[in-house]
Amino acid sequence: MKTVSRNKVIYTYSTRHKPAEHVKPNETFVIMTEDAFGGQIKTEKDTVEGLDWSKVDGATGPVFVETAKPGDTLVVEILDVKTESKGVIVTVPKTGILGEKPFGPVTKTMELKRGFVQFEKNVKLRIRPMIGTIGVTPKEEIATGSLGKHGGNMDVKDITAGVKLYFPVFVEGALFAVGDLHAVQADGELCVSAVEVAGEVTLKFKLVRGRQPEWPVLETEESYSILACGDTLDEAAKHAAEAATKAFMQEHSWSFEKAYMFSSLAADLRINQVVDPKKGVRAVVSKDFIMLKSLLTA
Amino acid sequence: MKTVSRNKVIYTYSTRHKPAEHVKPNETFVIMTEDAFGGQIKTEKDTVEGLDWSKVDGATGPVFVETAKPGDTLVVEILDVKTESKGVIVTVPKTGILGEKPFGPVTKTMELKRGFVQFEKNVKLRIRPMIGTIGVTPKEEIATGSLGKHGGNMDVKDITAGVKLYFPVFVEGALFAVGDLHAVQADGELCVSAVEVAGEVTLKFKLVRGRQPEWPVLETEESYSILACGDTLDEAAKHAAEAATKAFMQEHSWSFEKAYMFSSLAADLRINQVVDPKKGVRAVVSKDFIMLKSLLTA
Repeated sequence: MKTVSRNKVIYTYSTRHKPAEHVKPNETFVIMTEDAFGGQIKTEKDTVEGLDWSKVDGATGPVFVETAKPGDTLVVEILDVKTESKGVIVTVPKTGILGEKPFGPVTKTMELKRGFVQFEKNVKLRIRPMIGTIGVTPKEEIATGSLGKHGGNMDVKDITAGVKLYFPVFVEGALFAVGDLHAVQADGELCVSAVEVAGEVTLKFKLVRGRQPEWPVLETEESYSILACGDTLDEAAKHAAEAATKAFMQEHSWSFEKAYMFSSLAADLRINQVVDPKKGVRAVVSKDFIMLKSLLTA
Repeated sequence: MKTVSRNKVIYTYSTRHKPAEHVKPNETFVIMTEDAFGGQIKTEKDTVEGLDWSKVDGATGPVFVETAKPGDTLVVEILDVKTESKGVIVTVPKTGILGEKPFGPVTKTMELKRGFVQFEKNVKLRIRPMIGTIGVTPKEEIATGSLGKHGGNMDVKDITAGVKLYFPVFVEGALFAVGDLHAVQADGELCVSAVEVAGEVTLKFKLVRGRQPEWPVLETEESYSILACGDTLDEAAKHAAEAATKAFMQEHSWSFEKAYMFSSLAADLRINQVVDPKKGVRAVVSKDFIMLKSLLTA
């Protein structure tokens, strides 16, 4: 099985990077990932004050997907997400949703064992490994720490083993990259970091020809989520609401008004994160109410 | 059992309204409620163009809670929420999260039966009755269609039978009012209305003396939610995040930094609604991580 090593790190999604690997549709392979700090933080003495910020928020890749063409959809099946046994979380002064408060740079390292993160002596959290950054390369170069219609640093806590993602392919070979695993994160990731951890992702690609989603779509057993973003949460929420409404119009050939009403009843707007260059809001719709084909347009 | 009839409707939370009823702590009673349109919309021909807007978004009350004093917390136990068998949803031009789009005033009426709302011939939604507007009277008069630290039109879909709410008491007797039941609503209520329905709420009050939450708190079997709001979703999210962080500081005597980190891992920021005078965001924290006493301060 092909394995992409974690030293194949990139800091932008860009066509100028040489592919780290070529894979075929339906080929299972592994991508190893560094933590969001590029492994620079090893102990609680390593605060963000000493960080080389050019080595933060990288992703492993890009992976060239054979035969993927602009206009297609790249389907990413996440088969497994494994984390290393040590995680780290930091505060970064002036940063996160409460960045206006006065506070210092603090680092906390944590052991991950027997399914839990030990946050403090008497406080543990169940590990729920997730992928913070995942996406394809857009036409214009973009930092792996940012997010957009290509995916990127979306920080959706539901992106974990067993789900599928659907990305619009913008360039030959899609040029996929993944990174920024979290052992635990709440919706919002409000201090700007979660339990950051190195790890590995096992995955497989498929392709849908000639149809694309407007925003990345996440499929779980229960639901489809439209992963929108914007400069503010309000703008992100509007994009997610609009995409959900369009999908209901397509699904049932409904008027705008009927689809808009139905969105009010069946599209849950949820916050992903509030701290990165753009804010992320997803519209979550039960599979009872939407089919994949209504989320992809020619 | 005392029953407050649905003609005891108010359109502001204000000390100038004569109490519709007086109840004691621990006394189970019933409040009947009109739908959000005050029953004005009876058929699909009744669009919002003909509405008397002064009779929209009312609540039933106010109920004077014996012995409730400013500085106390009013605990509201929702014992049951029953809806009538007919619901209505509307679009209102220029309104809702997609209000910039061109669309007309459309009304849809729906039967509620056997646990489902029949939205269209082949599309039904499971009924999940919830309370849109619930709260106490603040010192300054405020419309029942708005929301704030006193509660009000929060549109939190989790406010349903079996939960408890904690409101800061601002005035003698708390002066509680409730209305705006929804048979179904998604997080966001993005078109501005849900399945609006008349109904009745069975409830009981308790009091916590001399301690208050900063924002209303919702207790379910699993979690506590801090129900914040703001002029934008971003501002509402910030208020929710700050209150969660303060609660973790109080719970564990943690530094700001440690509590801020923990919020990033354990406080899910969720959208209530995006369409009323203020936007609502709640921070949802598992009972594994917070006790009620950390959410109430003297």
